[in-house]
Amino acid sequence: MGLFSKDIETMDDLFVHTLRDIYYAEKRILKALPKMIDKASHPSLKNAFTTHLAETETHVIRLEEVFRMHGADAKTVTCPAIDGIIDEAEEISSEVADQEVLDAALAAAAQAVEHYEMTRYGTLVAWAKRLGRADCARVLEKTLAEEKAADQALTELAEAKLNIRAAE
Amino acid sequence: MGLFSKDIETMDDLFVHTLRDIYYAEKRILKALPKMIDKASHPSLKNAFTTHLAETETHVIRLEEVFRMHGADAKTVTCPAIDGIIDEAEEISSEVADQEVLDAALAAAAQAVEHYEMTRYGTLVAWAKRLGRADCARVLEKTLAEEKAADQALTELAEAKLNIRAAE
Repeated sequence: MGLFSKDIETMDDLFVHTLRDIYYAEKRILKALPKMIDKASHPSLKNAFTTHLAETETHVIRLEEVFRMHGADAKTVTCPAIDGIIDEAEEISSEVADQEVLDAALAAAAQAVEHYEMTRYGTLVAWAKRLGRADCARVLEKTLAEEKAADQALTELAEAKLNIRAAE
Repeated sequence: MGLFSKDIETMDDLFVHTLRDIYYAEKRILKALPKMIDKASHPSLKNAFTTHLAETETHVIRLEEVFRMHGADAKTVTCPAIDGIIDEAEEISSEVADQEVLDAALAAAAQAVEHYEMTRYGTLVAWAKRLGRADCARVLEKTLAEEKAADQALTELAEAKLNIRAAE
């Protein structure tokens, strides 16, 4: 979509634009997660990120399925939101000296990523249904459920383990 | 905090850094909301944004209260995440030609902002409790509850009105 060119005229255009935004975001997350796995020290946090890396690969494939179902090209549009969220995650990781504190910071940074995805997929599911694309909505809902579960798992891990070690 | 200078050594440092991050974010949102109010056309959406502007003013005051309670300077640190989320909101607003579609896009953009705040305040509440600052946690929880309610109100408005008009 051209910047400031008013290319979005219909709800369908907006739906496709937002699919391309989250497609870019998922691909950016695919590149960021291996670095987060390297930086994490608690085995449960490394595992959580590794599981989510595999899920993210599936999310990319599901988006390509939705593009195909909807007859739109699987293209990306730059998503300044995810760029900012991941830049912030990388910045904070570089500023933390203590490994236990770093784990708490990494979990929080990953939850900011999850929350961005949750809001975008939530919106896409609602728009797909409104556009009469219950088939696309069903595929997007699977990813939404996984993003919510990943966020919840990080909350539980942080509260049961990471934050306790970090504050000792 | 100096970039890449490993200034964060303890959980307390991380808590204060994240307070400063969301303090920056709230101030950036204070500047963005009046533009979103101008661009919105549905009266219910204008009202929702206007209500949230007043709430955001309270959130800034509450953060200053938490800084004071915790004995830390009320300073900001640049938050690339909120910069990216708001840049994206402004970019999409400029690309949508149709007013009804723009309302749906604005509501979704505002929900991305809410979700960032929800994840940060959720983390801050957990960290405050772990640091023995139940007093700070109670103040931060008030804001968290308002962010969740604002997000829920936008979901209901989008599904009951905005998305229907946009897809017609």
